[in-house]
Amino acid sequence: MSAPNVTLAEVARRAGVGLATASRALRDAPGVAPATRDRVRAVAEQLSFVVSPDASSLARGTTGRVAIVVPHLDRWFFGAIVAGLESVLRDADVDVLLYHVGDLADRRRFFEQLPARRKVDAVVVVAFPVGDRDRARLDLLSVHVVAAGGQSADYPYVSIDDFQAGWQAMSHLIHLGHTRVAMLEAIDPDQSVPPSGRSLAYERSLIDAGIPIDRALIRTSAWGGEEGAASMGALLGLSAPPTAVYAHSDEVALGAMRTLRRAGLRIPDDVSVVGIDDHPLAALADLTTVHQPVQLQGRLTGEMVLGLLRDDDVEVAVHVPTELVVRASTAPPRR
Amino acid sequence: MSAPNVTLAEVARRAGVGLATASRALRDAPGVAPATRDRVRAVAEQLSFVVSPDASSLARGTTGRVAIVVPHLDRWFFGAIVAGLESVLRDADVDVLLYHVGDLADRRRFFEQLPARRKVDAVVVVAFPVGDRDRARLDLLSVHVVAAGGQSADYPYVSIDDFQAGWQAMSHLIHLGHTRVAMLEAIDPDQSVPPSGRSLAYERSLIDAGIPIDRALIRTSAWGGEEGAASMGALLGLSAPPTAVYAHSDEVALGAMRTLRRAGLRIPDDVSVVGIDDHPLAALADLTTVHQPVQLQGRLTGEMVLGLLRDDDVEVAVHVPTELVVRASTAPPRR
Repeated sequence: MSAPNVTLAEVARRAGVGLATASRALRDAPGVAPATRDRVRAVAEQLSFVVSPDASSLARGTTGRVAIVVPHLDRWFFGAIVAGLESVLRDADVDVLLYHVGDLADRRRFFEQLPARRKVDAVVVVAFPVGDRDRARLDLLSVHVVAAGGQSADYPYVSIDDFQAGWQAMSHLIHLGHTRVAMLEAIDPDQSVPPSGRSLAYERSLIDAGIPIDRALIRTSAWGGEEGAASMGALLGLSAPPTAVYAHSDEVALGAMRTLRRAGLRIPDDVSVVGIDDHPLAALADLTTVHQPVQLQGRLTGEMVLGLLRDDDVEVAVHVPTELVVRASTAPPRR
Repeated sequence: MSAPNVTLAEVARRAGVGLATASRALRDAPGVAPATRDRVRAVAEQLSFVVSPDASSLARGTTGRVAIVVPHLDRWFFGAIVAGLESVLRDADVDVLLYHVGDLADRRRFFEQLPARRKVDAVVVVAFPVGDRDRARLDLLSVHVVAAGGQSADYPYVSIDDFQAGWQAMSHLIHLGHTRVAMLEAIDPDQSVPPSGRSLAYERSLIDAGIPIDRALIRTSAWGGEEGAASMGALLGLSAPPTAVYAHSDEVALGAMRTLRRAGLRIPDDVSVVGIDDHPLAALADLTTVHQPVQLQGRLTGEMVLGLLRDDDVEVAVHVPTELVVRASTAPPRR
């Protein structure tokens, strides 16, 4: 029996090796240097982790199927991740089983029915946090689990560096000369998770620039345009409103822009707005944003899955680069 | 052997019965009135249609899997259709196999590899036209094929009534008093298909209102915001530019709005814009549009598939209603 909450990924990370190497070391499979094998085994012993015979026999794919679990297929980001994933898996002749878990009830049901399914070689979780209870159920499957487009539990993942993306957006506003910068912080209301890198970047960039943090300029809501619109309205009610707004996503930013437009304020003359994503419609709104390559994240996740199924030594923490795209929604503050 | 291009759906339609009734009548299965059975058989004979033993044995689902073939998962419309489909199929414990066919090459490859797959009970084609060659390959599978979010060949389908949607958009502009109305017509560049209902509605509504049709006001392009932006630019170069624009989709309309904004023109004071879809971001752009229930189309298609697999007598041509949503992008023309 493994100790609760100890996964192969954790053993691999602590031993400083890839997931497949850890798996091979524990199964005494060939291709691992003796010193590495001993180190992995020492870590596993220390963490009370024991590989189950089931898990090792399932390390190689047998069903030819991979499950993709995705929460919001009707949003561009999630659809683009799935499109990238599917293309790589299909090229490898692996079938993709799709599970759409739109709300919390869907997710609960998916994870409850999961052990009965057990008919896939791997599960890809697209950009939502897997809680402890659901993770225990996933572990029962004894198959590879990989996170795409965000980190989840301590599964191998492909995502952007959220801190870096937030830093790029904030640095742009600070370099333009803004000192009253608001943050439209987006969270997943179904889950309690620590502040994301996008939030940490806000505070760190202000501190580094010697700008005091004003908590009144931070508004937290669910992801979405209407939420961004409402948060922007609250900010306009402040006695000293912001001259620039940093939104956690383009959809949130587009909502904020509608509120500004309806209030008769000009973008960027009165208020600058920057988002994160480079949503296809951001270009149509002339929105300055931080571009993230979304299909690429899907494709790299697909390759990670195939590597794990082949028992290759894969990199288990892959960050894709982001890039500031300056359009017409940002300018220096008016003097 | 069936005559080429004659499908069970065509027999059913000409006989004025549902697909399952036609199937039962031809197989002499119980539950069909003798007069109905004779009528179906007469139509089948007239069309040289003979049901294959293969097709009838496969009328009931056996694999527990349905394939969804979708061209643009990273666009809201397609993702929302798939989300609706998946929810209904999963409730029935049917697994969804996803095939993303992003471009024409993908589609070709999918249909070429299709006969080798033959491991699903039904195929759902999401909103793209299936050509004759691909249709012949689909027929080899001898499984139910259903179209979601648009009509394709003569497969059973769930979609909006495109003519009705276009009519609602055009009537709104005409009632406001516009007589120089442009159309941003969107087509699938990979396929040659007859003019859609959205285009026919443009001509019909103008003729009915006694407004002459000016071909210079019609611009045709692929679906997409950048295409809409370019078409709008061409319209602004006319000696008598339009006072209103009817776009085949919200994304095309949002592109046109960017061009107008950049040209210093005010919406709706100088030019009115109306789209079709009610994309989630249309509300953020204050765009007047024709709402279509997209997830519902997916769900109803899922129910149609389940009905066909149960051999129920299902309606094979389902239209969901559309509705005009008036926002701030349309107003009477300036005098």
